[in-house]
Amino acid sequence: MTSSDKPGNAADAPAETTGAAETGGATAVASRDWASAAADPQYRAAVVDLLGALAYGELAAFERLAEDAKLAPTLADKAELAKMASAEFHHFERLRDRLAEIGEEPTGAMEPFVAAYDAFHKQTAPSDWLEGLVKAYVGDSIASDFYREVAARLDKDTRELVLAVLDDTGHAGFAVEKVRAAIDADPRVGGRLALWARRLMGEALSQSQRVVADRDALSTMLVGGVADGFDLAEVGRMFSRITEAHTKRMAALGLAA
Amino acid sequence: MTSSDKPGNAADAPAETTGAAETGGATAVASRDWASAAADPQYRAAVVDLLGALAYGELAAFERLAEDAKLAPTLADKAELAKMASAEFHHFERLRDRLAEIGEEPTGAMEPFVAAYDAFHKQTAPSDWLEGLVKAYVGDSIASDFYREVAARLDKDTRELVLAVLDDTGHAGFAVEKVRAAIDADPRVGGRLALWARRLMGEALSQSQRVVADRDALSTMLVGGVADGFDLAEVGRMFSRITEAHTKRMAALGLAA
Repeated sequence: MTSSDKPGNAADAPAETTGAAETGGATAVASRDWASAAADPQYRAAVVDLLGALAYGELAAFERLAEDAKLAPTLADKAELAKMASAEFHHFERLRDRLAEIGEEPTGAMEPFVAAYDAFHKQTAPSDWLEGLVKAYVGDSIASDFYREVAARLDKDTRELVLAVLDDTGHAGFAVEKVRAAIDADPRVGGRLALWARRLMGEALSQSQRVVADRDALSTMLVGGVADGFDLAEVGRMFSRITEAHTKRMAALGLAA
Repeated sequence: MTSSDKPGNAADAPAETTGAAETGGATAVASRDWASAAADPQYRAAVVDLLGALAYGELAAFERLAEDAKLAPTLADKAELAKMASAEFHHFERLRDRLAEIGEEPTGAMEPFVAAYDAFHKQTAPSDWLEGLVKAYVGDSIASDFYREVAARLDKDTRELVLAVLDDTGHAGFAVEKVRAAIDADPRVGGRLALWARRLMGEALSQSQRVVADRDALSTMLVGGVADGFDLAEVGRMFSRITEAHTKRMAALGLAA
């Protein structure tokens, strides 16, 4: 499944009509390269935060997917989840290498985000294979939405990396098929998984808000306001776009979210 | 660390002077391609077994390394173990794809070996990070020795695949450095890890012997005797070469094995 097949991407609402154009900051950055954009220390700090957050997110996702692969009912299913885990690891490598390339110690850049991701995964350990599949799909989709949201606010070089990693997501497509089949076989499964999906999104939002509150430079950049200060309402709108896209996807999957 | 840096590879004793040349069977197969060699149903069955055993071994190794990554004391260490896990997954993919290419259902080919690998990993779950590193290094090295042993007994096409996967092992080099440093810092660690390494090798041999007893075609091919029937003594010599190489490596690592 490529990202264009996915119903209800948050990026259906183009970035130009949302935060980026309103402040003008994103457009200015988007036409610059890293060397030029990074001369602004606040922008540089925001990108280091972003790369650190994405890198640890990928490493944590690798670890969880590898763990969830144990729940697989067949060897072929196990291999599919292991494949996703391996893809996440390669994303991690690219993001970590980029941090090193711009002269940042990758571990230091990742550390501020360890607690939030670890708490998320601890709160959302799947209790069975189907919950694991829904989590893989939801996680993959939210990551893809987030990468799209943020791409427009980045300098050319960083954007290129983020879009390259994005291009390589969508490994969770197989999950959709399996979940649909399970709901067809027993519609009660749908109710349980809908609750599960809602809990996943709730935990994701709760941990994201923690990060937003802690990391001013990152949050400011995310809403396109590098030059203009922090706009909490715009952060709210971004979360709301991602949540709406999630809701549409869950409905398409047969889960009322 | 490339495989040529490793002390005491079993392949230091060239295959020509051991099983292969004695029976002549390996030489005959070695000059043929898959299509020609696979006309012999016993050879075909042996290769399907071999690819199935290697494939599940890689998938199981992926799963265990990903699990052991949790024991890592730092994010950088975690990333190193995740990298090894990911490399094992890619080996799995190549072996699985090859099974599909020759018209075999990969899951069916792997099933006969699931119990032995799972039992091995269950019996050898590391209790801390250093035990995990020693296991990664020992496992990687034994796999490399075994791939070398078997390569000489395979048709050209299968050999090419096995050697390609072998070329990509040696990811455990970083483990050597970490283990040496830990022993330098506290020599008592060496005694504990030496016992651990001995237990790993003991379990590996015990599970291998189980496989040898169960899978006649595979065992016969491993000792170069496709045409000449099963030679238990030659299986014993192969195990003994691999054990000797292991002992030398452990000594080089500062562990009396």
